[in-house]
Amino acid sequence: MEISRPYLLFLGDVPDALAAKTGLGIVDWRRDWCVGQWRLPGCKADAKLPEMNAAEGADAGAKTMIVGVVNAGGKLPEHWISSIEDALAAGMDVAAGLHQRLADIPRIAEAAKKHGRKLLDVRRSTENFETGKGTKRPGLRLLTVGTDCSVGKKYTALALEAGMQAAGLDARFCATGQTGVFISGRGAAIDAVVADFISGAAEWLSPATEPATWQLVEGQGSLFHPSFAGVSLGLLHGAQPDAFVVCHEPTRTNMRGVAHPLPTIAEVIEATIAMGKLTNPAIRPVGIAINTAALAETDALETLEAAAAKHDLPATDPVRFGVDPIVKRIMTEFPS
Amino acid sequence: MEISRPYLLFLGDVPDALAAKTGLGIVDWRRDWCVGQWRLPGCKADAKLPEMNAAEGADAGAKTMIVGVVNAGGKLPEHWISSIEDALAAGMDVAAGLHQRLADIPRIAEAAKKHGRKLLDVRRSTENFETGKGTKRPGLRLLTVGTDCSVGKKYTALALEAGMQAAGLDARFCATGQTGVFISGRGAAIDAVVADFISGAAEWLSPATEPATWQLVEGQGSLFHPSFAGVSLGLLHGAQPDAFVVCHEPTRTNMRGVAHPLPTIAEVIEATIAMGKLTNPAIRPVGIAINTAALAETDALETLEAAAAKHDLPATDPVRFGVDPIVKRIMTEFPS
Repeated sequence: MEISRPYLLFLGDVPDALAAKTGLGIVDWRRDWCVGQWRLPGCKADAKLPEMNAAEGADAGAKTMIVGVVNAGGKLPEHWISSIEDALAAGMDVAAGLHQRLADIPRIAEAAKKHGRKLLDVRRSTENFETGKGTKRPGLRLLTVGTDCSVGKKYTALALEAGMQAAGLDARFCATGQTGVFISGRGAAIDAVVADFISGAAEWLSPATEPATWQLVEGQGSLFHPSFAGVSLGLLHGAQPDAFVVCHEPTRTNMRGVAHPLPTIAEVIEATIAMGKLTNPAIRPVGIAINTAALAETDALETLEAAAAKHDLPATDPVRFGVDPIVKRIMTEFPS
Repeated sequence: MEISRPYLLFLGDVPDALAAKTGLGIVDWRRDWCVGQWRLPGCKADAKLPEMNAAEGADAGAKTMIVGVVNAGGKLPEHWISSIEDALAAGMDVAAGLHQRLADIPRIAEAAKKHGRKLLDVRRSTENFETGKGTKRPGLRLLTVGTDCSVGKKYTALALEAGMQAAGLDARFCATGQTGVFISGRGAAIDAVVADFISGAAEWLSPATEPATWQLVEGQGSLFHPSFAGVSLGLLHGAQPDAFVVCHEPTRTNMRGVAHPLPTIAEVIEATIAMGKLTNPAIRPVGIAINTAALAETDALETLEAAAAKHDLPATDPVRFGVDPIVKRIMTEFPS
């Protein structure tokens, strides 16, 4: 799936910033791909982009309007439909990552047809994937794995892309979730693939490359999350990573959405190696990424030092302290 | 998904018995649900049922015609369409387990509408599953797991259903694949569920029951199969089995469809416990089911004795020697 750029971000009238995290994530990483934001009265999120409606966005050159929100149930609110019709009428494609397909909403489907524009549902891949083969592919791959969902796996992969490129490595981010697809303009939401094709989709997402090229695959879920571990395992097998980084949020008590406690970083390292060696016997950890946002600076530094010492791995908070220690470890472990 | 009975089995003109394995599996376990078979000229499979066409099947009381075949690519051959139109005209629903949906074939969709009949695609679940919760549910569950695909997981679960019922236990088979759904008249093909909902679908398939009721969940794939391990893990977490049986085919050298060698039974036991304890800390193995069809009787018995001694578990070939040793172990381990 390829999404035409630049984007106009549609934030609707979401009640808070969390509901606009897709849109805000795009701006964090691809500010220069965004010509503006379109907010309806009452919108409580702000991506700090120029305000514009559909016609103004099209005039500013936007090729795709991104519905940059998540909402409970994954359904498009009825009163947003006319905004999407306006965008199509103004000559833009419209992309969304809701569970509900844009094309299943008759007024939107009709408007797209009438104006000859594309509707892109990033949670509904149009690729016909094959089942995974498990065969080793040329090139280098790194997967970000987690002690839970939403612990910084996408952020870490994107920060590593920037850090490794700055260090002169050939590195590119591989999106596996909806926000990641918007940020890279390419990819597939692996959690929306039919179960039989999870590892096959991961193989398609991180294909054979030149031997020294790094693909930085955005992880999903956790091998220890009772809702999503199947996705995490299929992604691990398909991505066949040479290296992985464990992402962690130290103040969380329960795994997201369920009653289960978080696994330890050591358990995640052990399980990732045990299961990952099926498709890459040389799989190894190269770092720990800890989200220390909830900790004071001294506590954050102590937490990182303790984790580094315990696991003999570089540990950092990519947001707060950057990814240099992990990039250095990668360059040491994989001299090219 | 509920499928009306009895069935007329449509075998088309498949080139061999393997291509009709779905239909033959239904007859193995539910002979009394099948009024007849409909074969086209040249058909090389035979379920040994009375031969009848659509009109004759409907006269014999058939409520659903089952397209009981698998074929490369999962597509319905063009020249079978008129047979399906005939079945719908004769007043039957039509059920199939191909990747291609019956409803996506215009002539079939029109005929179903015209005659007011249902099209049932068991690989396309119409249930809206939720994500898995991982919360313990009342009742007892057994999952058949494997060293590979196609090593007897469905057969073992069905044989255990019969053996446990004969021993006076309240036991029922839970289908997770297309043939199993036809055999039980209910269930969902878990490999066709969207990846985010694998464990949620498994939870739906094996719901809360009376404390002494056993649900015998048909396993899928293998934790060690690089194509399908994600499905196997989501199913393991969702089924939260109290007990599991390892199924194995001792003469196979490579895992089905890939270049990987088979894991050992010990590796499967270890990984199943390690990953399964996330949703059921008391998970334990209760037996080994070995397909000895390729071995002479003395070799078969030696293989079973060696496996039983090595793993301290009852080992049997359910087809050749029955499941009594495993049923006895279940009754010892879970006295009610």
